[in-house]
Amino acid sequence: MDPNAVAKAFVEHYYSTFDTNRAALANLYQDGSMLTFEGEQFQGAQNIAGKLLSLSFPQCQHFISTVDCQPSGPAGGMLVFVSGGLKLPGEEHLLRFSQMFHLMPTPQGSFYVQNDIFRLNYA
Amino acid sequence: MDPNAVAKAFVEHYYSTFDTNRAALANLYQDGSMLTFEGEQFQGAQNIAGKLLSLSFPQCQHFISTVDCQPSGPAGGMLVFVSGGLKLPGEEHLLRFSQMFHLMPTPQGSFYVQNDIFRLNYA
Repeated sequence: MDPNAVAKAFVEHYYSTFDTNRAALANLYQDGSMLTFEGEQFQGAQNIAGKLLSLSFPQCQHFISTVDCQPSGPAGGMLVFVSGGLKLPGEEHLLRFSQMFHLMPTPQGSFYVQNDIFRLNYA
Repeated sequence: MDPNAVAKAFVEHYYSTFDTNRAALANLYQDGSMLTFEGEQFQGAQNIAGKLLSLSFPQCQHFISTVDCQPSGPAGGMLVFVSGGLKLPGEEHLLRFSQMFHLMPTPQGSFYVQNDIFRLNYA
């Protein structure tokens, strides 16, 4: 399968889950997964989902601008680099962000998020 | 060694080399290395250095804003996520960018760049 298509499908799935059923993001991480969110570090699916659920905005909408991907090595992983915008309720302007994911294959032929680093862009 | 200190030292070395002796960046990549620069893909140290040397600005100055890092897996690799600004000669304003590196250890105890994805931030 075309890795770019896989990356794009993952990214669309990730942000639509974020925007409609944020708690379900926990299923995309595993115990060894890591998130660095605006410089703050979290490890494990439960801690990561806990952080994402505790963000000050219960609702939001992500817009994807670019998706770049590369294979990460012989183990079948994939690096996905996203730029996009985040719209909060009642706000007119998008918050621009950049985010990278390191996806690793599961035995079921899907992917989980091993590494996740998120940063809002400087204005 | 503290991985955050390693990541920060690498980032400082990378951008100071970029700004003062760009051709020497070839030494930081290997034949299997990949660069995605504004969506354009390059593989191998020579092609990557060729791209970086052919950029329209022969001189520039990088400013680093944030450096985040995580281990990438059992092989000793490291993911480094950078946000910063790029100052071109005669330009007053910084171009904001985000960039990720996947560093892999060398037998000599140093690191090379296996993956490199660069994007200018949307204004």
